[in-house]
Amino acid sequence: MQRYFVKQADLPELFGLPSEIYQHAIVVMRMKKGDCFEVVTTQKQVLLVELVEVTAQTAKVRVLKRFEHQVELPVRVTLACGLPKKDKAEWIVQKGTELGAANFIFFGGEYSVAKWDSKKQPQKVARLQKIAQNAAEQAHRVVTPQVTFAPRLNKIAFNEFDYKVTAYEEAAKQGEKTVLKRLFEALQAAEKGKQKSLIAVFGPEGGLSATEISDLRAQAFELAGLGPRIMRAETAPLYLLAALSFVLELG
Amino acid sequence: MQRYFVKQADLPELFGLPSEIYQHAIVVMRMKKGDCFEVVTTQKQVLLVELVEVTAQTAKVRVLKRFEHQVELPVRVTLACGLPKKDKAEWIVQKGTELGAANFIFFGGEYSVAKWDSKKQPQKVARLQKIAQNAAEQAHRVVTPQVTFAPRLNKIAFNEFDYKVTAYEEAAKQGEKTVLKRLFEALQAAEKGKQKSLIAVFGPEGGLSATEISDLRAQAFELAGLGPRIMRAETAPLYLLAALSFVLELG
Repeated sequence: MQRYFVKQADLPELFGLPSEIYQHAIVVMRMKKGDCFEVVTTQKQVLLVELVEVTAQTAKVRVLKRFEHQVELPVRVTLACGLPKKDKAEWIVQKGTELGAANFIFFGGEYSVAKWDSKKQPQKVARLQKIAQNAAEQAHRVVTPQVTFAPRLNKIAFNEFDYKVTAYEEAAKQGEKTVLKRLFEALQAAEKGKQKSLIAVFGPEGGLSATEISDLRAQAFELAGLGPRIMRAETAPLYLLAALSFVLELG
Repeated sequence: MQRYFVKQADLPELFGLPSEIYQHAIVVMRMKKGDCFEVVTTQKQVLLVELVEVTAQTAKVRVLKRFEHQVELPVRVTLACGLPKKDKAEWIVQKGTELGAANFIFFGGEYSVAKWDSKKQPQKVARLQKIAQNAAEQAHRVVTPQVTFAPRLNKIAFNEFDYKVTAYEEAAKQGEKTVLKRLFEALQAAEKGKQKSLIAVFGPEGGLSATEISDLRAQAFELAGLGPRIMRAETAPLYLLAALSFVLELG
């Protein structure tokens, strides 16, 4: 079912559609009186609503049902990815959102071929934010991940996070197999209490530099292997999210 | 390191490069005498070789080291995906290969919008096969997944597989959380013995039809939920592979 996010924290039994939603639901999707869709409030409440009145400019909906979906990962996962080439940032955001990421930070990695100058950067981030929004609606998320940009890895405020991990190809090559499992077990144990946050750092195509790795070590990051196969820069973050979802949501 | 697959089962200490590899290594990658790369035989043996002679048409390499990599998933996973739209088949193959899939079958799903007529089909499959080959080399796999096409789901020879699972959105909606875990535990237990095979069926964008689901039930497929978020047709197969890799290779 179609799903839209609204800026309001709470909504009455009967309310008019914000113009942006009117534009999509009525003009684009051609919904008519009697059609139903879902609305998500800023309080993450999901409302099932029915169109009860449609005019050329406005539309009114009635709330049929209010419910909470448990669709968010129990851990707030921030993916920090070295700026990748071409459209890869776009699909890290789209797929990462489907897989439950809470936030995305793209940083200018030492080995990043792609560069975002300060002029391009705002519209790039805005475009990725839009992709996150669409993916969140399509995946029936109740929160939309935030996308931000950091000129350098060491500009990220790492101390905000409870857990810190980075996917390190060298670790994988050396057959490192236990860090991710221990991390997930810790998160599983912590899950009972208040929600925890995890930041996972991934290099661009060229990987992370020795300096970047030692910066992360200095910030108490764990270096994890993600299995024996070499994954592309855009695939590794999805591996981590899927494995974490399996452990915390199906395990 | 660059890696190439050769048709030979075994190679002597000194051998000439097949023209296809010459074309890429010497012409495209501009490798020179003294440069090293890896060659994988049909016996899955990985050889580290050094270029010892390069002419305008031919190149000779010497074997420096012969070793077995343990980079293949312990279970042979076949992804059977309802024909998706646009270029999604291409990246299911690319990402699925990075994540360790053994084979891909694309089938014409009842709800598939995309159609492959018998004329287009061979070149479509050939293109996907090439993508699988490149991804296998890039991911340092020792086998290249095979890509095939089935006009309909019920044309697939399901009885060849030890384990059968399908991702069913309705199951997920009903909060099904145990099938995948039990399946992976069974595979973990079986792992000790001879290698097992798993087929995982995924619908196209429109999902699987009631008929297709009942066909799969009749074939003793298990219906698994893949967590609380709705994933796109091309994302669900990657979720399964990543979760399986975590359980069998890092768990």
